[in-house]
Amino acid sequence: MKHLLSTADLSRSDALQILDTAEEMAAVSGREVKKLPALRGRTVVNLFLEDSTRTRISFEAAAKRLSADVINFSAKGSSVSKGESLKDTVQTLEAIGADAIVMRHWGSGAAAQLASSGWITSAVVNAGDGTHEHPTQALLDAFTLRRHLSRRHGSAPHGRDLEGMHVVIVGDILHSRVARSNVWLLTTLGARVTLAAPPTLMPFGVDAWPCEVTYSLDEALATGPDAVMMLRVQAERMKDAFFPSAAEYTRSWGLTDERLAVFESTSAADAIIMHPGPMNRGLEISSAAADSPRNTALEQVTNGVSVRMAVLYLLLSGSAPDSQEATV
Amino acid sequence: MKHLLSTADLSRSDALQILDTAEEMAAVSGREVKKLPALRGRTVVNLFLEDSTRTRISFEAAAKRLSADVINFSAKGSSVSKGESLKDTVQTLEAIGADAIVMRHWGSGAAAQLASSGWITSAVVNAGDGTHEHPTQALLDAFTLRRHLSRRHGSAPHGRDLEGMHVVIVGDILHSRVARSNVWLLTTLGARVTLAAPPTLMPFGVDAWPCEVTYSLDEALATGPDAVMMLRVQAERMKDAFFPSAAEYTRSWGLTDERLAVFESTSAADAIIMHPGPMNRGLEISSAAADSPRNTALEQVTNGVSVRMAVLYLLLSGSAPDSQEATV
Amino acid sequence: MKHLLSTADLSRSDALQILDTAEEMAAVSGREVKKLPALRGRTVVNLFLEDSTRTRISFEAAAKRLSADVINFSAKGSSVSKGESLKDTVQTLEAIGADAIVMRHWGSGAAAQLASSGWITSAVVNAGDGTHEHPTQALLDAFTLRRHLSRRHGSAPHGRDLEGMHVVIVGDILHSRVARSNVWLLTTLGARVTLAAPPTLMPFGVDAWPCEVTYSLDEALATGPDAVMMLRVQAERMKDAFFPSAAEYTRSWGLTDERLAVFESTSAADAIIMHPGPMNRGLEISSAAADSPRNTALEQVTNGVSVRMAVLYLLLSGSAPDSQEATV
Repeated sequence: MKHLLSTADLSRSDALQILDTAEEMAAVSGREVKKLPALRGRTVVNLFLEDSTRTRISFEAAAKRLSADVINFSAKGSSVSKGESLKDTVQTLEAIGADAIVMRHWGSGAAAQLASSGWITSAVVNAGDGTHEHPTQALLDAFTLRRHLSRRHGSAPHGRDLEGMHVVIVGDILHSRVARSNVWLLTTLGARVTLAAPPTLMPFGVDAWPCEVTYSLDEALATGPDAVMMLRVQAERMKDAFFPSAAEYTRSWGLTDERLAVFESTSAADAIIMHPGPMNRGLEISSAAADSPRNTALEQVTNGVSVRMAVLYLLLSGSAPDSQEATV
Repeated sequence: MKHLLSTADLSRSDALQILDTAEEMAAVSGREVKKLPALRGRTVVNLFLEDSTRTRISFEAAAKRLSADVINFSAKGSSVSKGESLKDTVQTLEAIGADAIVMRHWGSGAAAQLASSGWITSAVVNAGDGTHEHPTQALLDAFTLRRHLSRRHGSAPHGRDLEGMHVVIVGDILHSRVARSNVWLLTTLGARVTLAAPPTLMPFGVDAWPCEVTYSLDEALATGPDAVMMLRVQAERMKDAFFPSAAEYTRSWGLTDERLAVFESTSAADAIIMHPGPMNRGLEISSAAADSPRNTALEQVTNGVSVRMAVLYLLLSGSAPDSQEATV
Repeated sequence: MKHLLSTADLSRSDALQILDTAEEMAAVSGREVKKLPALRGRTVVNLFLEDSTRTRISFEAAAKRLSADVINFSAKGSSVSKGESLKDTVQTLEAIGADAIVMRHWGSGAAAQLASSGWITSAVVNAGDGTHEHPTQALLDAFTLRRHLSRRHGSAPHGRDLEGMHVVIVGDILHSRVARSNVWLLTTLGARVTLAAPPTLMPFGVDAWPCEVTYSLDEALATGPDAVMMLRVQAERMKDAFFPSAAEYTRSWGLTDERLAVFESTSAADAIIMHPGPMNRGLEISSAAADSPRNTALEQVTNGVSVRMAVLYLLLSGSAPDSQEATV
């Protein structure tokens, strides 16, 4: 694996290698001293051309636990805002010494374009590109789901896929890179995925995706899924008034107290509520659902660091003999 | 000690433990290589929801000298500005791996609320909450005062309190968290404290505080204090026109060249001028007073790093056996 | 060497020491683990009172490879924007523990003023002051030129100066600190320098500079220089309409495809095109010239890290016996 651009690219065995490595990283994170020397002397640049403190901090924490140096580069006040091309920016970052470029970009396809451009030889990690993909988010979701499935089976998660799990993804599928990345990854890992959204927020061509589609959250919940993933309502993307009002959205598509009760009575006792955060309490999720012990939002955040450690480790530690000895 | 929220909470022995530890840290800072491995693998998050570069940098330097990883999180462009609740923000930071959250917050009581909420198990350090408290500022002030007192007595500062010192705090007491934190801490340590301010800038209920109050700076200086602490005039808080003009403020409440001369002739030869910085030269302090050898503003800044190292060390190194061997 | 303020101050032997040390640093950067322990426990503060992500990141990478702690301080939201004087700001940074202050300042002469003020004892590195100097940029340019000259002679660069090289610097000389720093340094190192600019962008008194002047880029190229250095057009400085339009600038002063062809046929086969970046493609340089194998813009960026490592190393490692053992 040279880059991480999309979960559509990931084979089942690639995905399992990342998840298994992330389990090793999670074991390290539980220790008193959490640092590994694996990436000492390597430089990870967080190139965030769109704000995302949570994702940036997660990558920063992951890189630092691997002893890498981290340089944060945001668009504001940078050469990019002076009109420099992406090509010149990333070539400059590589020339300064970047071994990996973790990029959040407003444009769909930006990471793939960068990786295929031949502009740089550094590893590229897609940290979200427009409405396209956010592969590490899907990987941390898969990691979280796999841990729950393993607990159900009373076995270690290593090597296991998501065969037998049913995941419902709810909300603004149209604009959600999280949803896209999850559809490809979860189905590659054997899960059954259902998208639940109003017609105006469902992408064109969704019929060709390897998942089921429903236009009623209540119907989706009635099937008793193992997990229901509530997408964040992004107010800035809702301006075009897909809905008459926030209250209307909540009524039809929110995980309200009523729907929480249905979920708790219909789904398995160990079924979970997922959210990529930050949660809009009272909009797509009620406070009771946000604070429910079934809600794995924080577990997902913790798992995100392990998954990002695994991705950086796999991309950067390579097969160089002298870095091998520093492996987990 | 689990958190550092307020100096009102600190017993005399707690305070002395911090100050004595800070003396050890100051000794380290004088060495060629200033780093200690004590907090290697620990993560300190600076959660600054209000700008304060000086305080943030001081905590950052302190944490790095203890070999901790530091992640800076400011409100701008973050999930907080997208409306995320404080609860979700701090739980996310803990989930990412924060061992301590150093928080500057615009709201009085925010740090205490966070610590008592049960939302997180990380250590919370109050780096300033509204107009309430700024405990590490008071600790560094006490540290500075203690060093001067020890010099007067020709002995080491360890174990000593501030018995016998008289400190005058001057200016906008009403809005000053620095003043509040100092009143509790300095009196706990045995110092005599006098607040000098115009009636409009004196808090209601000040009569119940463990200190003296005067409405004339000149009267306060006439008593020959061991230290006079000039508070910064915060223009943004003076909008409500407590004074007809800046010139009027300086005339009555500034440490002008004339008052400096009075201070120098009335107080002891080793009496000091303190200021939390940044100084408004020509407003609350004249340039001559700012540059006087009696002015300890820079010494306070240096001591701030030692005190913050001590606080982070005491909160985070705990009694775990494997971190004990890394102690100072 | 106590500070690095200007290349006009640098003797030939000072300059060669920096360039030779930078060659050692470049050798380290080629290794698997690029870190040196030389500056462990030292703190480098990047004090950027004017935005410059590229320069800031380069110094940050250089300091981190030497294992120094780095603290970034920018003007926005800082005490500086609250009206604190430069004196108080830098004294505060030194009090917090800064061993070196790398300063980008909007005012010409700011770094020299700081170094001569007696305000601080920390090392001062000028990272660009107004339209005055940008010495590390000139050092990285000299480093790049020297490597090319050495390759031409088939020998190691160590100890060599730039005798025999002819460098043409093109564009807005009037406002360019890069041009100023290069004129002094390159001529100190024995190179012949020609400035090519329209009369409106040529500084008054340029006749007294140790270089040649021409008002025609085409005439300069006809002399077959070893290097042509295209300065960046800074739109914010061109507001005063030195030119009727950008197209007019390009026509007379851009390295267009036509001029690239002239350069390739007239200059030596190993002659190079230099640019401090970021490049304005289509304005001062055509895309073909930007992407030409003769263009060393990226090599300059890489060399910038080595040169800045050398400067920080020479300023901070000093002759202290215990840091000597950590030298390269």
